[in-house]
Amino acid sequence: MSDHCPTIARDGQQVVILDQTCLPWTERFVRLDTLADAAVAIRDMQVRGAPLIGATAAFGMALALKADASDTALAHADAVLRATRPTAVNLHWALDLMQDTLAPIPAAARPAAAWAAAEAIRAGDAAANAAIGEHGQAILKALADTKGRPLQLMTHCNAGWLATCGHGTALAPIYAAHAAGIPLHVYVSETRPRNQGLLTAWELARACVPHTLIADNAAGWLLAEGRVDLVITGADRIAANGDSANKVGTYLKALAARAHDVPFYIAAPRSTIDFACPNGRAIPIEERSADEVRLIHGMDDDGAPSRLRIAADTTAACNPAFDVTPAGLLAGIICEFGVFAADSLAAIERR
Amino acid sequence: MSDHCPTIARDGQQVVILDQTCLPWTERFVRLDTLADAAVAIRDMQVRGAPLIGATAAFGMALALKADASDTALAHADAVLRATRPTAVNLHWALDLMQDTLAPIPAAARPAAAWAAAEAIRAGDAAANAAIGEHGQAILKALADTKGRPLQLMTHCNAGWLATCGHGTALAPIYAAHAAGIPLHVYVSETRPRNQGLLTAWELARACVPHTLIADNAAGWLLAEGRVDLVITGADRIAANGDSANKVGTYLKALAARAHDVPFYIAAPRSTIDFACPNGRAIPIEERSADEVRLIHGMDDDGAPSRLRIAADTTAACNPAFDVTPAGLLAGIICEFGVFAADSLAAIERR
Repeated sequence: MSDHCPTIARDGQQVVILDQTCLPWTERFVRLDTLADAAVAIRDMQVRGAPLIGATAAFGMALALKADASDTALAHADAVLRATRPTAVNLHWALDLMQDTLAPIPAAARPAAAWAAAEAIRAGDAAANAAIGEHGQAILKALADTKGRPLQLMTHCNAGWLATCGHGTALAPIYAAHAAGIPLHVYVSETRPRNQGLLTAWELARACVPHTLIADNAAGWLLAEGRVDLVITGADRIAANGDSANKVGTYLKALAARAHDVPFYIAAPRSTIDFACPNGRAIPIEERSADEVRLIHGMDDDGAPSRLRIAADTTAACNPAFDVTPAGLLAGIICEFGVFAADSLAAIERR
Repeated sequence: MSDHCPTIARDGQQVVILDQTCLPWTERFVRLDTLADAAVAIRDMQVRGAPLIGATAAFGMALALKADASDTALAHADAVLRATRPTAVNLHWALDLMQDTLAPIPAAARPAAAWAAAEAIRAGDAAANAAIGEHGQAILKALADTKGRPLQLMTHCNAGWLATCGHGTALAPIYAAHAAGIPLHVYVSETRPRNQGLLTAWELARACVPHTLIADNAAGWLLAEGRVDLVITGADRIAANGDSANKVGTYLKALAARAHDVPFYIAAPRSTIDFACPNGRAIPIEERSADEVRLIHGMDDDGAPSRLRIAADTTAACNPAFDVTPAGLLAGIICEFGVFAADSLAAIERR
C-alpha cells in the first residue's frame, strides 16, 4: 500500500493534485497555480475527503501568498478557502493553523512559511493515517482472532488514500491488517449520488484487498444476515460529544449495525474533531446541486468516461452531502492517539 | 389518477403489457403470446411489483393453456411460472388460485376458465388498490389535520399503478389524498440498483403530485431533520407474524423512521400475506445479477435511452433484491380490509 501516487504534492511554486472527478475512469493530474484554482479544486471535488480538503486549503493559502502576502491578501485567501465547503472541519483546522503561523510574522516571510506550514500539515496527516492504521489494525486483529474465517468488513464512501495525504483513515486499518496477513473482505457501498464507493473499490483492487460492491440499499440486508463483522467509515466533522458527520448514508448503516450488534467505528484524525461544536445539531450539513442526483458518471460501452441522465432537469431533487451519526451508535473513534469512546473525546482536546 | 394506461390487458388470445424496463424513458408495449413470453416478462422485470407479477402469472397460465390444456401442460406452466421470481408471494397466490380453478375441471373447459380467472385476479387487484387507497387516505387525512402545512411523505421503490392492476398500493392512499385536496409532498428515493424510484417520480409527475427525488442515502438525514411525517411502501411478501419483505433498502428507512418516531406503513393486498410463512427469516430473498449494480440505465445527452457502466465486469458485486422489515418497526399494514397492526394479521387469514 505504499505504491500509490500522491493525492497532493508541491511542485515548485505550484501544486499538483490527482483529479478525483475523473477517477476511477482516468488518472488525470491537475496543476494548481492560484488561490482560485485551489478553491475550485475543493468546491468541485477534484480533491475530496476531509483530511485532503484541509491540506489542499493549506497549499491554497501558499499559492495565494505568492503574489501578495499582505494582511489583506491573507484575510482574503482565508475567507475564499473557508467558503468552499461547509461540513469538513479539517478545512477550518488547517486554515486556523495557517493563520496562527502566518499572521504574527512579517509579510516578506510569509510565502516561504506558508509552503512549510502546508507541507507540515500534509506530512502530519500522513503520519496520523499511519497511526490510525496501527490502532485500527489491533481492533481488526482481535476480532479476527475470534473468527475461524476471513473478517467481513463494510465501509461507506471513500476514506482511503484518495481522501487523505497518506494511507487513508477508515481504510488505513484495513490496509494494515491486509499487509499483516489477516484474511478479510470488504463490502463497499456505492455511495450515491457521487459514487465514491467506486473510488474505494478502485483502491482496494489496486491493493489486492478482496471486496464486493453493493448498492447502498443492500447494507441493511447484509447486516441482518450476519454477513458483516464490523463497519468502519471516516468522518468529516466530529462534534465534542462524539456525534459524527460523514457522507450521507453513514447514519443508515450505523442504525442497522446497532440493530444487529455489529460494532461501528469511525476513523479520523484529531483535526476532524471540532471541540467548538457541542453536538451534531450544530454541524452545518452541505446541500449540493440537484444535478448530482440527476446525473451519473461512468463509462460508455467503449470504456470512455461518460455520463447519464437518470432524471429530467425539471425533476426536483434534494441532495444533502452528509448526515450525522449520534455518538451513541459508535463503538469507538479511532484517531492517531488511539481508540476512544465517542463520549470521551475531551481526553484528546489538548493534544 | 384514472387516466393511466393499463399495465396488463388481454387482447384476444394474447396479453399486452407495458414494458417497464423502458420506463420512464420510453412507453413501449409488449405483446405476450406464449408461456415463455410471460415467464421472461416476469423474470426480466418487464412487469414488476408483487401484485402485477401475480396477475401476469395468471395470464401466463391462460397463454400456456391455449395450445394444450392437459394436466401435464397445467403442471408444466405452473412450474415454469413459479420459478420466475422467488420473493413476491402474490405469484404463488395467483398460481394457487389458478390451480384451484383449473385442476378440477375438464381440460376442454380450462382455456376459457383460465382467461376468466386471470381477469378476475386483475379486477380483484384493482378493487383492492381502491380499498387500500381509501383506508390509507383516512390515515393521511388524520395526520394532515394535525399539521398546518403540506404533509411530508416518503416512499421507496415503486408501489404505484405500475406495480399493480389499479392505482397502486403505497401510492393509492397518496393519490386518493391528493384527489381529496389534502396538500402533500412525497420524497421519492431513487431505489438503486434498478432505480424504480424514477418510475414513482414519473407516476407522480403525471398525476401532478408534488415530489422530490433523493438518493437512497438521504433518507436518514431527512428523517433526522424532521422533514418526513410518514413513510409508506409496498411489500412483496408479508409473513404471518407481520415481518415484511420489500425492495432492498426498505429496512434502512424503517429503522430510521423508528429512530425518529415517524410512522412507517406497509400498503399491500391480502394476496401479499403469506400465512404459511411464519416470519421474515423464512422469506426467500432473491439475489439478482451483479450487472444490475454495475450498470445504470438512463438517457444520454440527446434524451435517448442509454446505459452506463459504473464498475468493470470484473468487480464483484452482491445484489439482494429485497430485505425484511421486522413487524415491530411497522405502524400498521394497510390492506383492502382495513388497517391492521402487523402482529394482528390472523384476523384476516380467512378473508
